[in-house]
Amino acid sequence: MKFEVTILGSSSATPVYNRNPTAQLLNCNEKFYLIDCGEGTQQQLMKFGFKASKIDFVFISHLHGDHYFGLIGLLSSLHLNGRIKPIKIFAPAALLEILTIQFKYSETVIRYPIEFIATEADESRQIFENADMTVETIVLNHRIPCTGFKFVQKKRLRKLIIEKLESENIDVEYYPLLKRGVDLALPDGRALLNSDYTIDSEKPKTYCYCSDTLFDERYFNSIRDCDTLYHESTFLHEMLDRANQTHHTTALQAAQIAKMTGAAKLLIGHFSSRYKTLQPLLDEAISVFEHTEIALEGVTYSI
Amino acid sequence: MKFEVTILGSSSATPVYNRNPTAQLLNCNEKFYLIDCGEGTQQQLMKFGFKASKIDFVFISHLHGDHYFGLIGLLSSLHLNGRIKPIKIFAPAALLEILTIQFKYSETVIRYPIEFIATEADESRQIFENADMTVETIVLNHRIPCTGFKFVQKKRLRKLIIEKLESENIDVEYYPLLKRGVDLALPDGRALLNSDYTIDSEKPKTYCYCSDTLFDERYFNSIRDCDTLYHESTFLHEMLDRANQTHHTTALQAAQIAKMTGAAKLLIGHFSSRYKTLQPLLDEAISVFEHTEIALEGVTYSI
Repeated sequence: MKFEVTILGSSSATPVYNRNPTAQLLNCNEKFYLIDCGEGTQQQLMKFGFKASKIDFVFISHLHGDHYFGLIGLLSSLHLNGRIKPIKIFAPAALLEILTIQFKYSETVIRYPIEFIATEADESRQIFENADMTVETIVLNHRIPCTGFKFVQKKRLRKLIIEKLESENIDVEYYPLLKRGVDLALPDGRALLNSDYTIDSEKPKTYCYCSDTLFDERYFNSIRDCDTLYHESTFLHEMLDRANQTHHTTALQAAQIAKMTGAAKLLIGHFSSRYKTLQPLLDEAISVFEHTEIALEGVTYSI
Repeated sequence: MKFEVTILGSSSATPVYNRNPTAQLLNCNEKFYLIDCGEGTQQQLMKFGFKASKIDFVFISHLHGDHYFGLIGLLSSLHLNGRIKPIKIFAPAALLEILTIQFKYSETVIRYPIEFIATEADESRQIFENADMTVETIVLNHRIPCTGFKFVQKKRLRKLIIEKLESENIDVEYYPLLKRGVDLALPDGRALLNSDYTIDSEKPKTYCYCSDTLFDERYFNSIRDCDTLYHESTFLHEMLDRANQTHHTTALQAAQIAKMTGAAKLLIGHFSSRYKTLQPLLDEAISVFEHTEIALEGVTYSI
């Protein structure tokens, strides 16, 4: 099952050096989840060959513009391009007010349903579930209410060893139960030990998205042992004072967090406009946590 | 005196084929005026090598998103990049409400003054004047209140023929009056005929910007005899019904308008996403009005 994230924007605050404000596209089993939506996200989707129409779920971490200014344009374009199917938006409550006033003055009546689910930044909650995944909020510590998101794949059914089942003429009607891990005693006396006819599915994976936050141990439990941790890394550690003042994290801290919480892989992003080249940020993180990568726009990372 | 316009976005409604929603940058005597501001305008400015910080005046024609969704991001970036000097925004009144609510929820207190001047789409008015230019609104006929803008250069002072003045030892204290076209009788008995010592300045030019509108003779008087007419040209004339229905103009109509109002040059833009190539729109306009050009992004047109 596909579980991967494409970076659409990696800049903090303002677009610069051809880097766009934050947005990511999560593909879980060919369903598409947009995570944050800075200005120009719809253009980035086009540039990298994705159809915005495939996005059914949007997660907005907080209401600083570099994380949502592109949403109204994206929603408008979906409307103008004839979308009918609903879209679900998970975001701080005030975003609905912001969208509503803009639709009002353009006299736009969006022809597809927008289901808006207000997030709260007080405690971690499960806010989404479907057959593939659950999503929980992560309570971050930023200047305004801000939640990260923890995307947890569901355990898949066991895989059938079809050749063996067919060679022993085992009726397909038993397959669903075998996939669920059940041992069977057939009417003809045969005992089907599940472990003889199936193999375990892949271990489900977890993607944690921590957009804007101060280094704060209170959210570490929420992100423990994830497969890929995306963590903002706005500054080099020499700018720690500035990071603390603006409620952001340094590359060194992001790496410490990955290490402390047992992440398998760290992806750093949300780079300050002061950094024309990103190698120093990567070097700093790798000095603490080897399995670090830079979030590069247009690149897809397997989780 | 420089008087030229750079196209930052030429697409209608949605960004497509690497074309961005509407925005233009007018340079009048090295002062910069932004006309409309679709999503991604700040990125376009950077791409084409302009500094957003140089813009002191913004004119927004109407509140369809493809004409203003980029403004909040641009204003935020100016703030984050340390702007102190004021900016003047001319736009429909509701835009202030839209900006205010977004600043409120991001807890942003913009550190430079925003002077907001509400436009009205009921009758043409002069809304701006400085040493270089006046700006008047053009009452367009769109689905929601919409004004175009008429930028009129001021007549410059006469140019001194310095060599002649110096060879005749005429005191510099007389220069300012000569530039203003005054004839002088000097105390030593010499008569200075202004026309002997100065030449007329260039004829002042006019740029008319008609963003989104139905073909409607009521605004033709406002745009008469301009040097460059920018006129939206969303559709080919075979889509006239659609143009009328959505209150837009066809390429043929834009050319007819240029011809009927005596424009020296026509610039067409605001192209529908159905047109991957723009040549048919240009061909159609040229068949009626020869001096037509396509508004191409990144290209600067002398007015």
